[in-house]
Amino acid sequence: MTIRTHHLRCIGCGTVIPGEEARSDFRCPLCNELYEVVYAWSEGVPVVPGAAAVNLPNPTALRYLWQERKNSNAPADQSGVWRFRELFPILSDMTKPITLREGNTPLYELPRCARVAGLDVLLAKHQGMNPTGSFKDTGMTAAISVAVERGFEWVACASTGNTSAAMAAYAARAGLRSVVFIPDGKIAWGKLSQSMDYGALTIQLKTDFDGCVDLLTELVKRFPIYLLNSVNPYRLEGQKTPAFELLEQLNWEVPDHVIVPGGNLANSSALGKGFQELHHLGMISRVPKIDIIQAEGANPLYRWYMDANRVMKPVVAETRATAIRIGNPASWRKAAHIIESMGGWCEQVSEQEIALAKAEIGAEGVGCEPASAVTFAGVKKLVRLGKLKGNERAVLILTGHTLKDPQYTIDYHRGELLKPEELAQASPEMLSQHEALKKAPLVMDANVDAVVRLMEERMKQSMPV
Amino acid sequence: MTIRTHHLRCIGCGTVIPGEEARSDFRCPLCNELYEVVYAWSEGVPVVPGAAAVNLPNPTALRYLWQERKNSNAPADQSGVWRFRELFPILSDMTKPITLREGNTPLYELPRCARVAGLDVLLAKHQGMNPTGSFKDTGMTAAISVAVERGFEWVACASTGNTSAAMAAYAARAGLRSVVFIPDGKIAWGKLSQSMDYGALTIQLKTDFDGCVDLLTELVKRFPIYLLNSVNPYRLEGQKTPAFELLEQLNWEVPDHVIVPGGNLANSSALGKGFQELHHLGMISRVPKIDIIQAEGANPLYRWYMDANRVMKPVVAETRATAIRIGNPASWRKAAHIIESMGGWCEQVSEQEIALAKAEIGAEGVGCEPASAVTFAGVKKLVRLGKLKGNERAVLILTGHTLKDPQYTIDYHRGELLKPEELAQASPEMLSQHEALKKAPLVMDANVDAVVRLMEERMKQSMPV
Repeated sequence: MTIRTHHLRCIGCGTVIPGEEARSDFRCPLCNELYEVVYAWSEGVPVVPGAAAVNLPNPTALRYLWQERKNSNAPADQSGVWRFRELFPILSDMTKPITLREGNTPLYELPRCARVAGLDVLLAKHQGMNPTGSFKDTGMTAAISVAVERGFEWVACASTGNTSAAMAAYAARAGLRSVVFIPDGKIAWGKLSQSMDYGALTIQLKTDFDGCVDLLTELVKRFPIYLLNSVNPYRLEGQKTPAFELLEQLNWEVPDHVIVPGGNLANSSALGKGFQELHHLGMISRVPKIDIIQAEGANPLYRWYMDANRVMKPVVAETRATAIRIGNPASWRKAAHIIESMGGWCEQVSEQEIALAKAEIGAEGVGCEPASAVTFAGVKKLVRLGKLKGNERAVLILTGHTLKDPQYTIDYHRGELLKPEELAQASPEMLSQHEALKKAPLVMDANVDAVVRLMEERMKQSMPV
Repeated sequence: MTIRTHHLRCIGCGTVIPGEEARSDFRCPLCNELYEVVYAWSEGVPVVPGAAAVNLPNPTALRYLWQERKNSNAPADQSGVWRFRELFPILSDMTKPITLREGNTPLYELPRCARVAGLDVLLAKHQGMNPTGSFKDTGMTAAISVAVERGFEWVACASTGNTSAAMAAYAARAGLRSVVFIPDGKIAWGKLSQSMDYGALTIQLKTDFDGCVDLLTELVKRFPIYLLNSVNPYRLEGQKTPAFELLEQLNWEVPDHVIVPGGNLANSSALGKGFQELHHLGMISRVPKIDIIQAEGANPLYRWYMDANRVMKPVVAETRATAIRIGNPASWRKAAHIIESMGGWCEQVSEQEIALAKAEIGAEGVGCEPASAVTFAGVKKLVRLGKLKGNERAVLILTGHTLKDPQYTIDYHRGELLKPEELAQASPEMLSQHEALKKAPLVMDANVDAVVRLMEERMKQSMPV
């Protein structure tokens, strides 16, 4: 009998199946819901025939082992994902993953943002410092490694942004062929540059985004191609590891709040799963609240959260924070479970609040893409609402690098991002904050006296944050 | 008497002065040459009054200390630059630098590129994985920390690219005001997005680039502003640390060749200094050859190298690899010394060779900016010339992230980068290599049968590299 280290459990009907028996579209044939990866030590998992015996080291030994691996030059040990491999045994050989040394992302203090928000301390874990510039790498290293173990030659996703970049990079690393499906028509070339660079094939289909997903779902049934959209449960196993890394960076002191942008909602689900598993294993004594922040124009989870009956209704999504411009999030049920079981909040923030928050984070020397900045905009709201106290410790999850969307930054600083009707709604205080942060280039004669006068003038102004 | 841990030595006349006594333009008043930072333990340094006693730990203890710091959560220990602080004591308190957790960059194997070039092994150290996306961060963390210690409120540079991004980020981190001078006229907004995001003031001067440098040199004499162009010798002290990190990643086995792009030539100088210092201290038994690769259109060092009389003549620079588009490199004398004393080679590569090399590196899942790709183009040439043997171990230094120049990638894959007259010069072999790598998007009907047929067709083609 094959010894299996993990199984998949349907989040709808609870059916447990061996990992390799999942349908190619990763949907439960009984109820069409998504799967989550479970292990013999997971909460509520029945004894499954063929499951490997539980032999996890004790918490102290695990922490020591993970720490020790930092001193190793083996690729799996240098990865900030695979260093924690005891807690996601999804491969038969966990020491030979496909890795670009993802993870190991910095945890920054943001002292000036903390002051602006009215907090003693504010921390930011910058997942945009991953190899392709977004948190997606932590999940893709896991799922591509599974694709290789399962013997696939092709992998695919429907995405115009961070997912396709991460998939293309890891597929190339593995020597797999990858294909990205995008809707025909207005093509955002900048977002595609990475997947082209990593050698992915891009196919523009004469349909909309949902049509691309539909075709891909059909394709994986007809052709041996591994599906890497966020329905793939192995991606979440990689994406849960930043929770472990964060706690290590905090000397295992659990923060009070972890603030996550809410788009497709797989990231908040994965981080929540990570914290809950550590708690279940006795490695931490409590879990943080996971607060999910959405853009006002793409807020289906926020609406669900505010609805007394907790009904999920898709919305037509519209926000400049393109990485979270999702109206019908695939993983909403997982994220809803995380909010409900861990006691976090859901908030929404406006386009103006996002732009201001991004500039404030930037002025601390930390660049991020607009979707990441919803976290800080959300923190300010949570503090005002009394849901986050001044002496509580909060950690922002910044999901993407500022270089992922340079045009947004340029437009903001040139005063071309926000429309007059948007600015008309702003308070005088917010308008003056924008003005203090905006840094449009000045044109001057090459005259040193004039430049000196300008510097002296600027010295009279205080720093914006 | 003040105890000084470091001094500056003029690379022209050899005069040694205390660090804080350098002129604000970092030029020697006697011979107008640049300085290098020296320590009591540096080669050829006379005993200087007030110099701190030499008390370096022995090599084994140092290696162990640097390794141990990986297990610490202190910012200075988590930085891949400051972890090696014993070898560049430039601050009175080396445990409190301005850091964004720079360094700690991955060392990748490039097995398919190795095969293409005819090497058993090829490695790439990716400095584009630094916080702002380029190797400049390793130098800027050092120089900005010095600016803070010297009490400056303003820092400045003339740059339109990676230098301004790094300066702006570290200045923001430190709470300093920063200003970037650029020539008026055709402005590359993408390259400026980062410095705007990090809150730098950009001034477009009605002059050319040399005019910007001239004004800045005058400005630092008239106003208390710290100069961060590459003449600043402290930047090189940070930029030498990737040499240490590389050796640590190679278990202290010295590679045969380190291949560096040649632009302003501070980077090759800094890495060379790092290796030479380790050798002098007995931490390695030999030094690698440093091979410097330039673009054909910006090749003053290559011309110097090929000139029997070794005369340096500036050129008018023109290359799409903008990060090395420099015709009059400030640090050429330092780099020339490195080539001559370490026995490396200098080569030049064409725009076509650069484009092909970038796509080949990309197809391994490793994205870099065009300037970084000259290294692999150069390796292929060095192998053909017999200067790099198949069984020798070479390490490419990739200097910038692919997201630094998405337009180059887009133009390449859409077939719009290289002009017909450039392609006309290419060999049939090179043209077919380009064709195999180019990944322009296909437009198709949303028909699953058609997509399956396409996949089956593609399966018959071998992978490009």
